[in-house]
Amino acid sequence: MTVPPLRIDLVTLFPELFEPWASLSFVGRARERGILTLRPRSPRDFGLGRHKSVDDTPYGGGSGMVMRVDVLVACIESLDADAPGPRAHRVLLSPQGTPLIQSKVKELAQREALMLICGRYEGFDDRVRAFVDEELSLGDFVVTGGEVAAMAVIEATVRLLPGVLGNEASTLEESHGADGLLEYPQYTRPAVYRDQSVPEVLTSGHHAAIASWRHEQAVERTRERRPELHARYVER
Amino acid sequence: MTVPPLRIDLVTLFPELFEPWASLSFVGRARERGILTLRPRSPRDFGLGRHKSVDDTPYGGGSGMVMRVDVLVACIESLDADAPGPRAHRVLLSPQGTPLIQSKVKELAQREALMLICGRYEGFDDRVRAFVDEELSLGDFVVTGGEVAAMAVIEATVRLLPGVLGNEASTLEESHGADGLLEYPQYTRPAVYRDQSVPEVLTSGHHAAIASWRHEQAVERTRERRPELHARYVER
Repeated sequence: MTVPPLRIDLVTLFPELFEPWASLSFVGRARERGILTLRPRSPRDFGLGRHKSVDDTPYGGGSGMVMRVDVLVACIESLDADAPGPRAHRVLLSPQGTPLIQSKVKELAQREALMLICGRYEGFDDRVRAFVDEELSLGDFVVTGGEVAAMAVIEATVRLLPGVLGNEASTLEESHGADGLLEYPQYTRPAVYRDQSVPEVLTSGHHAAIASWRHEQAVERTRERRPELHARYVER
Repeated sequence: MTVPPLRIDLVTLFPELFEPWASLSFVGRARERGILTLRPRSPRDFGLGRHKSVDDTPYGGGSGMVMRVDVLVACIESLDADAPGPRAHRVLLSPQGTPLIQSKVKELAQREALMLICGRYEGFDDRVRAFVDEELSLGDFVVTGGEVAAMAVIEATVRLLPGVLGNEASTLEESHGADGLLEYPQYTRPAVYRDQSVPEVLTSGHHAAIASWRHEQAVERTRERRPELHARYVER
């Protein structure tokens, strides 16, 4: 048996959430082909007492419940203990983390094993931060758990693994690609749809003219929609 | 029958992906209580020919397939046609959109009906942009479809609806809250875990000292981790 190129361990109170999602599309295909192994595990399995309790009220008062550090670390360490490969790089998903960007995704995709730790409830005991390697956030908006962030990290990472996407070229050409520009506009049949026609140059057959039009469109679209990305592009 | 406060229509090639996810946690509870209605529908139902084809090769050449505008718009308009309430505000999820932030989430949560349109494959025919009200992105990283972005929008939006979260106060206190600061550190039992103790002030019982410590910690954490958020906070 060959060791799969990427193992992703998941610490989540909702392990059953990942199975249907991770069976579809290219994430599912990557698993079928042994390129990806997913190991979701719940802190609930390490919960305390009769109710398998995973959280408690915050020291100092305040609303909401806080996930216990001992329960989280027990789950983290159990995944390490029976890992079929190297110790995973531990990523805590939380609103206090560094916002995810594509260069970070590329870095994660180089690793042999990742552990994505999903917070839940109003928060988690801060001491868990001593047990993780880095902390990432999805962006400056508030969700209630790290699960959706973990899905985003998995989808973004897995699609960079060699052999996952059918067409290697499409990884290079798309949005936020090597040149840091938004993607140029794409068109397919029908040529005319409710008075909107496909731009003439695209049906001209002149490859150089098409490449040049697409580049101009990508630059212009980036300038209009994301001036800060455009500024970085111009500076290079 | 009362009209639910928020309806979310979904245009997605993977409608089956949303059901298990949307049955869990507070999104599931919001649906059970009639606060949220989800209507996922696939463009595949409007696909062309024997194979229910939804995409085609790009005009002008290039790798990958492009989703057809006619198929997407047929799905969008069919959701409007049998909508049980007002026409939905149409949001296209794509890497070329404006990155989602909490102020946008608040705006979306005010609406009666949203339609989230998930792109897939390498892209979609640009002419679909004429049929949407706005375009949002999850951030500057590349996923392969809008589905994870749609989940993030749903989770972020639904938690702001009145009556969804058990404790209204927790909506106010958390990360990226009213003051634009990251959350202060939280702790719960045990008081000592592997040599890490809970900060003394939190067990002091002095409410004013606790509030002041928490505020300082929030400011300091924001300054360290997100200098640009801290700068905005200081400017106010």
